[in-house]
Amino acid sequence: MMTVIVKAGTGDMAGDSRDRMVQATMDLLQQRGYAGTSFGDVMAASGAPRGSIYHHFPGGKQQLVAEAVARYAEGIARRLRMAVHSGHSRDAVGTFLDVVRTGLRASDFSRGCAIAAVVLDVTPSESVLLDLGSEALGGWRRILQTAFQRDGAEEARARRLATFVVAAVEGALILARADRDLTPVNEVAVELDRHLASGLR
Amino acid sequence: MMTVIVKAGTGDMAGDSRDRMVQATMDLLQQRGYAGTSFGDVMAASGAPRGSIYHHFPGGKQQLVAEAVARYAEGIARRLRMAVHSGHSRDAVGTFLDVVRTGLRASDFSRGCAIAAVVLDVTPSESVLLDLGSEALGGWRRILQTAFQRDGAEEARARRLATFVVAAVEGALILARADRDLTPVNEVAVELDRHLASGLR
Repeated sequence: MMTVIVKAGTGDMAGDSRDRMVQATMDLLQQRGYAGTSFGDVMAASGAPRGSIYHHFPGGKQQLVAEAVARYAEGIARRLRMAVHSGHSRDAVGTFLDVVRTGLRASDFSRGCAIAAVVLDVTPSESVLLDLGSEALGGWRRILQTAFQRDGAEEARARRLATFVVAAVEGALILARADRDLTPVNEVAVELDRHLASGLR
Repeated sequence: MMTVIVKAGTGDMAGDSRDRMVQATMDLLQQRGYAGTSFGDVMAASGAPRGSIYHHFPGGKQQLVAEAVARYAEGIARRLRMAVHSGHSRDAVGTFLDVVRTGLRASDFSRGCAIAAVVLDVTPSESVLLDLGSEALGGWRRILQTAFQRDGAEEARARRLATFVVAAVEGALILARADRDLTPVNEVAVELDRHLASGLR
């Protein structure tokens, strides 16, 4: 036991433990939002001792949340990039919605978007976290915008469509969690696809 | 002073004080989410003494939040009903988005939707609050659905369109708060109106 603690921050075990804390934070943000995620919850969920959290995250909760937000954002971005790379952007939007459906079903409707969870719980004074949220959502929008341009939309339209898609998906997640039912996601999927069909070639 | 305290729950002053607590809760939910809204914050924001909160809300935070959620939901529902009553449903959606813009501007992007704030912070075990969120969002959707049917959409399509509008507006609020900028709301407004134009007469 002692050996592991001494090695914290250098060995593989330490990397695993740091990783578990970021993962636990991401999960908790998705379930309870930013304000509802405490160091105590992260310790309980990741099995990390308090000293270890402060050791790995000297910047405190903000640093831990920032890393969780960045990891969540990159996870979605990676799937979006793969989806737009391997097919039409309409299908990529379908994949985006499938990711949402899978997450809701797997968590029995207890997990939403970690980015929305942070953005809705912080005030403009916590601008570091809002900047990260903005960057995350902006990253997804840029991936979609590029794909929409490739598939026939002119630049301004492609940008609007990308915003529209990310907004509709974020909103669908809220409605589905409230209803504990996938119907809102399915309804949004139909209308979104119909809209994109008329705007893309 | 003593007289006011004794009259709590019966006189006008008590009504005002109860009202201020619900209003303060609504404001705090919009700014910091459900988990970030404590009795202490409500007391500080409403100027109510702790005893008075427990007196008016024996059901604790859940009761206070439930009333704030119901008041917020009814405020939006009333505007939606007025808007669909006085004009075309496309214009009513425009009014919905104007309400969002006004709220964001007036609060310097610090206030979002009180319903989303609750839905994203509670787990399925807190089903009372999720039920209230579902009812609130469902109420807005039904008002829009009825208007869309009146304006030419068949029932299933009108229902989907209503879900789509509420989802897109909720999502636009998240994007705009993250960016501290109205552009996402304006972009969603353009695409939403274009979509409705093709689905309604």
